[in-house]
Amino acid sequence: MSVHTDQPATVTVLGLGPMGRALAQAFLAAGLRTTVWNRTPGRDADLVARGAIPASSAEEAVAAGPLTVVCVVNYDASDAVLRQDAVATALKGRTVVNLSADTPERARDTAEWAARHGIRYLDGAIMTPTPTIGTADAVFLHSGPEELYRQHRPVLDTLGGTHTHLGEEIGRAAAYDIALLDIFWTAMAGYVHALAVARAEGVTAGELAPFAQGIATILPPLFTEFAAETDAGTHSGEGNPITSAASTMAHVVHASEAHGIDASLMRVIEGQARRVIALGHGSDGFTRIAEVLGRR
Amino acid sequence: MSVHTDQPATVTVLGLGPMGRALAQAFLAAGLRTTVWNRTPGRDADLVARGAIPASSAEEAVAAGPLTVVCVVNYDASDAVLRQDAVATALKGRTVVNLSADTPERARDTAEWAARHGIRYLDGAIMTPTPTIGTADAVFLHSGPEELYRQHRPVLDTLGGTHTHLGEEIGRAAAYDIALLDIFWTAMAGYVHALAVARAEGVTAGELAPFAQGIATILPPLFTEFAAETDAGTHSGEGNPITSAASTMAHVVHASEAHGIDASLMRVIEGQARRVIALGHGSDGFTRIAEVLGRR
Repeated sequence: MSVHTDQPATVTVLGLGPMGRALAQAFLAAGLRTTVWNRTPGRDADLVARGAIPASSAEEAVAAGPLTVVCVVNYDASDAVLRQDAVATALKGRTVVNLSADTPERARDTAEWAARHGIRYLDGAIMTPTPTIGTADAVFLHSGPEELYRQHRPVLDTLGGTHTHLGEEIGRAAAYDIALLDIFWTAMAGYVHALAVARAEGVTAGELAPFAQGIATILPPLFTEFAAETDAGTHSGEGNPITSAASTMAHVVHASEAHGIDASLMRVIEGQARRVIALGHGSDGFTRIAEVLGRR
Repeated sequence: MSVHTDQPATVTVLGLGPMGRALAQAFLAAGLRTTVWNRTPGRDADLVARGAIPASSAEEAVAAGPLTVVCVVNYDASDAVLRQDAVATALKGRTVVNLSADTPERARDTAEWAARHGIRYLDGAIMTPTPTIGTADAVFLHSGPEELYRQHRPVLDTLGGTHTHLGEEIGRAAAYDIALLDIFWTAMAGYVHALAVARAEGVTAGELAPFAQGIATILPPLFTEFAAETDAGTHSGEGNPITSAASTMAHVVHASEAHGIDASLMRVIEGQARRVIALGHGSDGFTRIAEVLGRR
């Protein structure tokens, strides 16, 4: 299958928030016959001006072609659209690629629902912000039946960037998404907190910036080292015991609170470190925390 | 002043933990006459074998030359050594460079104590792990009187790496240290948590690694963007409103807790985002959190 045959490939986009609109624009730019629908009307004007076909209902939208891409805020929202009788009926024998973000559990639940209704289902996650869509910088993760993924890959490829099929287990894309969002937002929360503490000490974000870049530079090799330690269960810490980490964490807490700045984030982290120490692993490295986070 | 005159420069190292030992080794490797002392005896054997001069007391150690470098676990420990009458008397007219880690407040308090006792005082922070000492990768931050820093710079330079004098305000090195540790440990805590969640979903750290590297790669430009937004007080978020961030944070919390994994870290972050939203800034970017962390 090629998207550049005489008959243009057809795709439907449900959900016209910033990301859904970016997806529809990329499909249109690639010359696909693109049908669009949004629960709240009035979001499709400029897309229609660029050639999109407006649908007056979700069932009409999904009936327009073999492939529907869903991009709404979460699975409560996608359930509200997809799990209507008329929509489920119209989707029978067709394919849904759900690029909405949510948990692996919700992806698995939706795959079961799809199977019960004869709907072919792929789950996915978009790892990069809207301006990357249609460019080489976009990153998409997919999971679900590989044959189905291969079949629709040419259409998905028109969104640009890199697409990775992570496996047939439908929750896998969401699992990676969750883990990567976890890294991303936690790092950002630490950075924003550091900016608040620095400011209280008379240091601007701009002054701190070159040193913050230095920290950002040492993260990738440490991520690799931590991954190896975690998979091997060694947690040697390479001479950086969690006892000394906990000591520096306490400095962050004290310096923050001395300025009336909320330090609950570092209090949680220090608490995790203290728990590891109390469990007798104080000479281990920081990765030992991964072992105790799920311990009852 | 040069360290390579006929008369070798002299330096004293107080504190022979892993970092203090690394400092002493670098001084010895540079040919400095290096006197060493540690509160708990028996840590100096291999340093003495390499030419270090053992001191039998802290006062004897600091009397050996014009410059004493202190590297102990924190300022409780450095106070316990320095603020003894015999030591303070021996230090009169001499210089202390305190490379122990603690808060800016403790650095300021120590500088006041030093001034009262006629001791010249510089504060510093070591931003890189022990194996970097004596190599180009070491990063040292300094604060305090610039003239004093210039005077001792040749000796400090023998520790290798880059040395930055951040200003005369004595707490400045500790302020940067705290802010950078805040970024570092929070990012690491997020990563280790993500590894625990991934594992519960059947994804190894090695499988997640290339994508985690991808996240690490987007942090430096975002740090720069966040710094500009924070200093300008704009918090536009560039089309990524904190409302949608909060929604993905909730997914991380749910996916973690569904596996019995402690999600208190992301609960704190989500709580900060929800607070910003409740204060009427939901369409702002994530950096708005820096504004409310210190709000009473």
